[in-house]
Amino acid sequence: MNLKMTVQYDGTRYSGWQRQGNTENTVQGRLEKTVSALLGEPVEIQGSGRTDAGVHALGQVAGFHTEAPIPDRTAFRDMLNERLPGDIAVTEVTVASPRFHARLSAKEKTYRYTVWNSPVPNVLERRYLLQVPEPLDTASMEEGAHRMLGTHDFSGFSADRTKKSTVRCLKSVEIIQNGPRLEIFFTGNGFLRNMVRILTGTLLEMGTGRRDPETVDAVFQTCDRSLAGPTAPPQGLCLMEVIY
Amino acid sequence: MNLKMTVQYDGTRYSGWQRQGNTENTVQGRLEKTVSALLGEPVEIQGSGRTDAGVHALGQVAGFHTEAPIPDRTAFRDMLNERLPGDIAVTEVTVASPRFHARLSAKEKTYRYTVWNSPVPNVLERRYLLQVPEPLDTASMEEGAHRMLGTHDFSGFSADRTKKSTVRCLKSVEIIQNGPRLEIFFTGNGFLRNMVRILTGTLLEMGTGRRDPETVDAVFQTCDRSLAGPTAPPQGLCLMEVIY
Repeated sequence: MNLKMTVQYDGTRYSGWQRQGNTENTVQGRLEKTVSALLGEPVEIQGSGRTDAGVHALGQVAGFHTEAPIPDRTAFRDMLNERLPGDIAVTEVTVASPRFHARLSAKEKTYRYTVWNSPVPNVLERRYLLQVPEPLDTASMEEGAHRMLGTHDFSGFSADRTKKSTVRCLKSVEIIQNGPRLEIFFTGNGFLRNMVRILTGTLLEMGTGRRDPETVDAVFQTCDRSLAGPTAPPQGLCLMEVIY
Repeated sequence: MNLKMTVQYDGTRYSGWQRQGNTENTVQGRLEKTVSALLGEPVEIQGSGRTDAGVHALGQVAGFHTEAPIPDRTAFRDMLNERLPGDIAVTEVTVASPRFHARLSAKEKTYRYTVWNSPVPNVLERRYLLQVPEPLDTASMEEGAHRMLGTHDFSGFSADRTKKSTVRCLKSVEIIQNGPRLEIFFTGNGFLRNMVRILTGTLLEMGTGRRDPETVDAVFQTCDRSLAGPTAPPQGLCLMEVIY
């Protein structure tokens, strides 16, 4: 049976999604350990993609194959949640088609980056946002976001130094302001390493008036990482949804 | 000069508001230490009231007298926030009248208790809510809340065993449901020790069908703590506002 799980996590204390050697300090590692113990067989879990250390998820998707019988998926979800640490939860378990693969079958992902645009901190949500005390010019950010849209080689906006294709399609960037809370939603067919955080760091430089929105074009033309903005810190980022 | 501060805190790692001997592990103690160091003189800070260990605040009010010159209150607020730990913040500093006292002048307070009514955990907000997996009958809770309103001796709904008056006026209890999130707002002219948490624990017993709303009357009549519900855990509680 091929099972698909939707997973939430608070990434604060993890070294990211991806299992690394024997460290238990990853979300994938914790999930595999818990699922394997519950099913009584070693299970390998595939995520839709890695998230960096400190990045959160409300809609990560993870899949695994098992021969163990799972008569009641809701009871299985509840048993997993009883056994998982408080900062990881499985919100849904469904049966996927035999060909489903959490990473390879993914068509589209949405990330949210949350900025708290105020000189006054937000203590209760401090682990899930980036505080920017200076006022932000959202019109300039909107213009920059517009220039980011479409199919481009995003390697200038990435920490990836792979030989694989770095062409991605960024389908939408929505900036939603609600008082001091500024949420930037990025939807695309795939994201390179650190891509959302670098796009956000670049947009924030436009918002504070340190960068012209037109500079986006030069990053695409040159693929020069040094022409883009800084990598925004991980805690503001959250993987919201994966579409298959 | 008599200064009035509005204070936010995440109570998770504190032994409550009130300074206790030499422990630094209280919000009042941390604030006094930070304000005193910044002003270069020992300052005693009065809160509008104690909050229990683990209880949060978005609108606690604290006052202090100082002879030190504070030419720019916004700059003073920002300097305090730079020096305070990330889980305490001062959101506003105003000059109060000489007779203002954060506790004695308070006319009304509002607390919020947040319940996550779902079998699926909410990992990002887990420190700020109580998860209740069973469905809640909010009509029964509304009826119980209605019976709690008005001026009563609330000692049966309190951990206070003082000889002072335990009569308080509970002005409103509002239950607001938004998907799995259930927020209960309590407004009154004052609250006894653990009172909001015991009222909440009692309402939740009505919600799960374990208690009749009419049982509220017997708690008022007898002032018998054992006839009320359990003390709901602290992390769902937040002091929202103090009115003067």
